Amino acid sequence: MTHDLDDRMHFAIDLAQRAGELGLKYFRDLDNLTIESKGHQDLVSEADREVELFIRAAIAEAYPQDGIVGEEHAAVTGTTGHVWVIDPIDGTANFVRGIPAWCVVIACARNGETVVGVIHEPSTDETFYARLGGGAFLNGKPIKTSNAASLSEGSVGTGLSNRASTKNVVILITLILGEGGVFYRNASGALMLAYAASGRLLGYLEEHMNAWDCLAGMLLVEEAGGTVLKPDPKTVIRQGTQVIAGGRNIFPKLRMLCTGAFGNAAST
Amino acid sequence: MTHDLDDRMHFAIDLAQRAGELGLKYFRDLDNLTIESKGHQDLVSEADREVELFIRAAIAEAYPQDGIVGEEHAAVTGTTGHVWVIDPIDGTANFVRGIPAWCVVIACARNGETVVGVIHEPSTDETFYARLGGGAFLNGKPIKTSNAASLSEGSVGTGLSNRASTKNVVILITLILGEGGVFYRNASGALMLAYAASGRLLGYLEEHMNAWDCLAGMLLVEEAGGTVLKPDPKTVIRQGTQVIAGGRNIFPKLRMLCTGAFGNAAST
Repeated sequence: MTHDLDDRMHFAIDLAQRAGELGLKYFRDLDNLTIESKGHQDLVSEADREVELFIRAAIAEAYPQDGIVGEEHAAVTGTTGHVWVIDPIDGTANFVRGIPAWCVVIACARNGETVVGVIHEPSTDETFYARLGGGAFLNGKPIKTSNAASLSEGSVGTGLSNRASTKNVVILITLILGEGGVFYRNASGALMLAYAASGRLLGYLEEHMNAWDCLAGMLLVEEAGGTVLKPDPKTVIRQGTQVIAGGRNIFPKLRMLCTGAFGNAAST
Repeated sequence: MTHDLDDRMHFAIDLAQRAGELGLKYFRDLDNLTIESKGHQDLVSEADREVELFIRAAIAEAYPQDGIVGEEHAAVTGTTGHVWVIDPIDGTANFVRGIPAWCVVIACARNGETVVGVIHEPSTDETFYARLGGGAFLNGKPIKTSNAASLSEGSVGTGLSNRASTKNVVILITLILGEGGVFYRNASGALMLAYAASGRLLGYLEEHMNAWDCLAGMLLVEEAGGTVLKPDPKTVIRQGTQVIAGGRNIFPKLRMLCTGAFGNAAST
């Protein structure tokens, strides 16, 4: 089974890097990119759709019986208990405006538990990856979450979406600053989770994230020695989850901040 | 005089890129980097100091009579009316933690007015540059600020420092969100100003920035067709300024937000 997971992880690493190359072709030709609005401050481009189709085709060829859930196209039901959960371009708002902070996200879940997670940022050529029980890595080197126990020792990532109240984000930021912390928001939730996994941020907090944005990064944080709020395996892929993820020593404090900002921080 | 400014601009571009290469050598060897605290959430590393010395030595050789003001070392008084204003590594908190979002900033001011501005980000190899009256460019291509008139059309960068109240930052974020906007903070103020100049962000707002963090980016925004709150040329190099910078159509709204958050937004 470990062998199978390793195969899936290496498949996902290679696929994320190839998908990133395809994304870069669109990114370098933004003047000709077709962009649509999906809602308030929520954009999608042909790059998102085409890169997702590219990833789906590769999965369908390599693992034809697995399920697939992605941001831009309909879910595919599988028969193996494995579901690939993908975001072709996390940080679309950055992508369409030319900000080189976006990533390809590929996770594989087995019966609702994430077993493989890959986050690849093409602009800096950084690939973060993990498999369940196998540790977490960045471009071949092991990564670790921060050891910090105080918010004054670093920055905490956060995000916004139409699925959560902006008032709660303001409360969260107020609480972070009140503890001597600093907030960080580069508009790619998956990338900020990868930064939390590698100790670049103390942690990452968001009231609600979709599965394709958070599953890979949450596995990375756990495999890098950190702690995450465990999502409900029965509902997370369809409904998403609240995200509290960070170093082990700071996690209780991060959870307290989220309780203050979002209410009860139980699994959703 | 234009010829002289062009020479200074090309000198600054080349110097920022060479300084960026030196910075990258430290960035790729973070495990061995010496880091000190200058105050609450305010770090400095040997990379900041060494890269600044490298930049100072090059300026002293090419323009020995000019003044130099930098973040990490004492000011050099000149006799020509020209002062080089430099930040060897803007985004030190990112740098020391391994986040590839930091930049080398080189500005040249003449009697308090910025005449050349260069912002170079080594991790993505992007060089933003402008000279007074000559337009603004990114890697050789002209850039323009956003045409947007509504905050719902993009993101607004902001920053934090020990020189301004965190309460006011919370008010600013509340006002941005209340107008349908989104805040952005990647922890490098100069880089976010460059993003505002290239229309990637609607604008950039901060209650107080030091001259080495903001002069280059403010010239970039103006030369890219945008509007900035004009700093007082008599005091800006020593005392810094409030920064309101963005596209021409959104500027009145940005200024209103800053009045609401910071009080009177007159030049400081």
